[in-house]
Amino acid sequence: MLVVMKHRASEAEIDSVVHAIRDMGYDARPIPGAQRTAVGLIGNDGHVDTARLEGMPGVQQCITVTQPFKQVSREWKEDDTVVTLANGTRIGGSEIAVMAGPCAVENEQQIMEAATALRKMGATVLRGGAFKPRTSPYSFQGLGEEGLKLLAKAREETGMAIVTEAVDPDGVDLVAEYADIIQIGARNMQNYPLLRRAGRSGTPVLLKRGMSATIDEWLLAAEYLLAEGNDDVILCERGIRAFNTHTRNVFDLSAIPVVKELSHLPVIADPSHATGIRSKVVPMARAAVAAGADGLIVEVHPDPPSALSDGAQSLYFEQFAELMEQSRVIARSIDRDLLAGL
Amino acid sequence: MLVVMKHRASEAEIDSVVHAIRDMGYDARPIPGAQRTAVGLIGNDGHVDTARLEGMPGVQQCITVTQPFKQVSREWKEDDTVVTLANGTRIGGSEIAVMAGPCAVENEQQIMEAATALRKMGATVLRGGAFKPRTSPYSFQGLGEEGLKLLAKAREETGMAIVTEAVDPDGVDLVAEYADIIQIGARNMQNYPLLRRAGRSGTPVLLKRGMSATIDEWLLAAEYLLAEGNDDVILCERGIRAFNTHTRNVFDLSAIPVVKELSHLPVIADPSHATGIRSKVVPMARAAVAAGADGLIVEVHPDPPSALSDGAQSLYFEQFAELMEQSRVIARSIDRDLLAGL
Amino acid sequence: MLVVMKHRASEAEIDSVVHAIRDMGYDARPIPGAQRTAVGLIGNDGHVDTARLEGMPGVQQCITVTQPFKQVSREWKEDDTVVTLANGTRIGGSEIAVMAGPCAVENEQQIMEAATALRKMGATVLRGGAFKPRTSPYSFQGLGEEGLKLLAKAREETGMAIVTEAVDPDGVDLVAEYADIIQIGARNMQNYPLLRRAGRSGTPVLLKRGMSATIDEWLLAAEYLLAEGNDDVILCERGIRAFNTHTRNVFDLSAIPVVKELSHLPVIADPSHATGIRSKVVPMARAAVAAGADGLIVEVHPDPPSALSDGAQSLYFEQFAELMEQSRVIARSIDRDLLAGL
Amino acid sequence: MLVVMKHRASEAEIDSVVHAIRDMGYDARPIPGAQRTAVGLIGNDGHVDTARLEGMPGVQQCITVTQPFKQVSREWKEDDTVVTLANGTRIGGSEIAVMAGPCAVENEQQIMEAATALRKMGATVLRGGAFKPRTSPYSFQGLGEEGLKLLAKAREETGMAIVTEAVDPDGVDLVAEYADIIQIGARNMQNYPLLRRAGRSGTPVLLKRGMSATIDEWLLAAEYLLAEGNDDVILCERGIRAFNTHTRNVFDLSAIPVVKELSHLPVIADPSHATGIRSKVVPMARAAVAAGADGLIVEVHPDPPSALSDGAQSLYFEQFAELMEQSRVIARSIDRDLLAGL
Repeated sequence: MLVVMKHRASEAEIDSVVHAIRDMGYDARPIPGAQRTAVGLIGNDGHVDTARLEGMPGVQQCITVTQPFKQVSREWKEDDTVVTLANGTRIGGSEIAVMAGPCAVENEQQIMEAATALRKMGATVLRGGAFKPRTSPYSFQGLGEEGLKLLAKAREETGMAIVTEAVDPDGVDLVAEYADIIQIGARNMQNYPLLRRAGRSGTPVLLKRGMSATIDEWLLAAEYLLAEGNDDVILCERGIRAFNTHTRNVFDLSAIPVVKELSHLPVIADPSHATGIRSKVVPMARAAVAAGADGLIVEVHPDPPSALSDGAQSLYFEQFAELMEQSRVIARSIDRDLLAGL
Repeated sequence: MLVVMKHRASEAEIDSVVHAIRDMGYDARPIPGAQRTAVGLIGNDGHVDTARLEGMPGVQQCITVTQPFKQVSREWKEDDTVVTLANGTRIGGSEIAVMAGPCAVENEQQIMEAATALRKMGATVLRGGAFKPRTSPYSFQGLGEEGLKLLAKAREETGMAIVTEAVDPDGVDLVAEYADIIQIGARNMQNYPLLRRAGRSGTPVLLKRGMSATIDEWLLAAEYLLAEGNDDVILCERGIRAFNTHTRNVFDLSAIPVVKELSHLPVIADPSHATGIRSKVVPMARAAVAAGADGLIVEVHPDPPSALSDGAQSLYFEQFAELMEQSRVIARSIDRDLLAGL
Repeated sequence: MLVVMKHRASEAEIDSVVHAIRDMGYDARPIPGAQRTAVGLIGNDGHVDTARLEGMPGVQQCITVTQPFKQVSREWKEDDTVVTLANGTRIGGSEIAVMAGPCAVENEQQIMEAATALRKMGATVLRGGAFKPRTSPYSFQGLGEEGLKLLAKAREETGMAIVTEAVDPDGVDLVAEYADIIQIGARNMQNYPLLRRAGRSGTPVLLKRGMSATIDEWLLAAEYLLAEGNDDVILCERGIRAFNTHTRNVFDLSAIPVVKELSHLPVIADPSHATGIRSKVVPMARAAVAAGADGLIVEVHPDPPSALSDGAQSLYFEQFAELMEQSRVIARSIDRDLLAGL
Repeated sequence: MLVVMKHRASEAEIDSVVHAIRDMGYDARPIPGAQRTAVGLIGNDGHVDTARLEGMPGVQQCITVTQPFKQVSREWKEDDTVVTLANGTRIGGSEIAVMAGPCAVENEQQIMEAATALRKMGATVLRGGAFKPRTSPYSFQGLGEEGLKLLAKAREETGMAIVTEAVDPDGVDLVAEYADIIQIGARNMQNYPLLRRAGRSGTPVLLKRGMSATIDEWLLAAEYLLAEGNDDVILCERGIRAFNTHTRNVFDLSAIPVVKELSHLPVIADPSHATGIRSKVVPMARAAVAAGADGLIVEVHPDPPSALSDGAQSLYFEQFAELMEQSRVIARSIDRDLLAGL
């Protein structure tokens, strides 16, 4: 619920509302705006006594947020959220941001070669897994902290920002030490202790949609992050599970305009995991931009056939260059642009 | 199976191969090519004695088609099939064709107003249902032949080609009398008697993907059409059924590059039925073009709120005009163009 | 909508209501009951002037049917529908009926051997396809009318009733000449011209659930049959399509108690198509009985490895005998019994 | 891979094989058997030099496990695994075990009342959530350790064993202190750090199938537990996500015979979460027993309408009693029995 204050409400009046809300057993969060301040009442607000709040000095009205998710909804915040990284990359603004890199960090040469080449082609965020959640316990599970250090080195040399995955609550702090964006993977979308820890990390979070998550469930997972005070959340559509066999998942691109309408958070697309097949990544990356995605995250590897994981879906550098060029034209067809370079 | 003839094979040698195949209990279909002729062996070819065929004069080799579908596969025919309509519209070539119109033909004024406006904005094929398969027996079921006559009138006045649905084998001939393209709807994708009749109609067929059809099943349905001698088949992705709730279906746009790789047939996209929500149609139409679709089929109504069916997903004229403009730019980003006008 | 007449309403009063309804542009259908008669108003009843009907002599009240399906709903008819076949088999009563036989009629020996053995083991309805809808145009498509004749011969010799599929409207009359139950297959669940013809055939209909049909869509398809005057409709759950790979479909057994609550029609289960694997058919047949199914339809073949279609899911005779025995015990655990023999 | 030793292989020979395997960079696990010992080679065994192992004294042969999962497969271990709890409940043997209780532990009175009543009706394992993963951050999240203490108290008073969920790696030890079985919920099926910790806990684990997990993925998740040395793993089918709307999930009961064939682990069924509707729980519980489930886990609440979570799917005591009675008869139809009481 949002308690909207009058235009000239005083600080004291706002404070009183905050205290009244807390007194009723809820959390209160002041949201200053250009014209007026609102105070968000956070918690299960089914039984709130709005009369008490509406009768207080300075209060104009109480607005019920009809969606199950609250702080992530457009009802709560009308303007688009723009997540700004240390290297200046903005996600959710008019420019489309591109994140690229190998599935997993494998060794120094691989990640440096990838970062240098991708940086030249215009990507501004480097992806690469150090902790890999793998379906089989016997598959390569990532380099761990060693991988994080290599990513940090690549950032130093290229200026790219780093996005990499955390897989358990205790690992969040470690990842946050090195990364510009903490990725929460599809398998962990409803791993609530992990979300809570990421919500308290102070670092932007990339939240992938779970394989069988409805859009409401996805936005409620994001709500866990915002509920802990982290507003820098980027959503990522990466394909859902259906009966298809020719691609790894079904890329639910309609989710992009749907999310843009329901929420103020930026939403990007991952055509690599959505399709799982190299030759389908470039067309589907273009489609994502055309559908209104705020960014792309794409797997690119210096030598895809030798990749330790996901080689079949990793692009060659030339393909990535083509994707950048085509995406720029498409972005401009809808009055946006491609962020290419810092 | 394809029996590839030598470069200088004589007519008599080709004839002998045809007779030998028929003698073995299969159908034979000569496929002349620029360099050489091939003879397609049609039927369940699991037990064919290829030695007998390869030993014949003029035969170079026998090629097994590994896919379950045969004549629709790229192995059978490498070059893209281009379906050309009487008004010159080409589907499957470098230009992207746009089909548009109301869900159902409702009356003369409605269809004429739609046709005139859409023609001006560049659409070259008019869609409109005369026979409507409806989930409830108590819903409006279409005007029947009266609707076909109104479509024909709209064609006369505007030069647009007509695409409209046939729902039973006996109706195919009636629809073929009036239409340039016979549509087979998603519910009827595996209505084999209907497919056989459409395959014998001599009229191009638009084959929508069934709601839960795999791509192989869809191409096998198309095979029924080609098996009856109809090569003018256009495939149409229109969304599949999954667990989502915010859109009517899941628009499986990855199917477009997948089909383009497996088959030589043109494939278009229907963002209206895929999403079911007006505000999502334009972004998803753009995405379809970006993904490589050979055309679009879009519901547009002169007055969407008064539509007798599917009003919620029908575009206003202004939205359609915007879609045309954006699609043109996107088409050009991938070295294609939008066919806008005749 | 149901117009419920008073306890002592006269014939003349009922007739007046029927005429008034027809006068308003709807169909009317008197439904006599033990205590009182109701008149069903059939058609899209969103705008009916109930005041006019409620003011008529003999009318007690008008009841709106809230479900999208009308005549198939429990609101329309509270008591279970029991479909009775010529050989006395009752489907939908307290006894569970068993239909069994090969996927396709292949030749006289096969169908006679199957019928004789199954009859001895207690099945009272013989299944066998004469017209087979096949995914590939090159697969065996059934014996056609020859197959129907063989089924009729098997009926003569064993007393079993016959259930077999019709695949197009024109074929319905032919199938109805030979069969006790016309089967509408999953691929044709929304083939409305076929449903309408089957609805007018005067023969009981077995309506399989479509591969991706919701329960509402399934019941609306049944409504097409009842809307044409055919009340003898048996529903059949046969598995839905999902992402699974170890079975052919997902057997949605929960649909059985759901349908029993929403509708008065009998519902049976087809564990053969639902699983597609012989070793899973018996356990899932048992599960269907335990879930409350009114019957089973099971593929059994005298020599499964030689079957022309669906051999991998056809039971051996011994397996079928075990299934009958186990199902009887399970039926009794829920105060029902297994109909075994005539 | 399994290295099968000869009948009379000596301890020293077995030791040599273990060392050789470790020397090759894999883990080795001796599996003593009645007739002979096998040594399991654990890890990604794609490139193992079997010649070296087969040439060693005492080795009879090397068997490749063809499934992606290894230790959970029937190839690895042919006999059914039976998990035995401290109170004597055996899961996976000939008797079907029943776990029952409320969704969440709410207070002492509620859990005691439930435990006492369920114990009398024959359940031997008490379920109840202390840590609840909830879709919304604003929903009741469970009593935490206080809930665990109440469960332990209920165990003391009734002798029932306790199954309750752990939601993060750090919580596993705490849950293991109180519980007889640690539950891993559907949302956490691929939470690998959680699985690893549960695998090292020394406590039996109940692993629910993820909402969109294939059976292979589910068994691979179980492999994480066995790979850490925990053989006491119970699988639980609880419904998968599909397009249905009348039930919460689709209860994939065919998974039960499929899993029993692929794996030696016991598999139970959860009809409460699978259907989400009270009136469907009893029929589907019966169906699960008929399909071959080794046990049931059912939500029962002393006063369902007042439940803090999942009230709509919780059974009344009388319904549970009926379920026990019917399940016993069904179990006996397949030569099993119901474990009712200690």
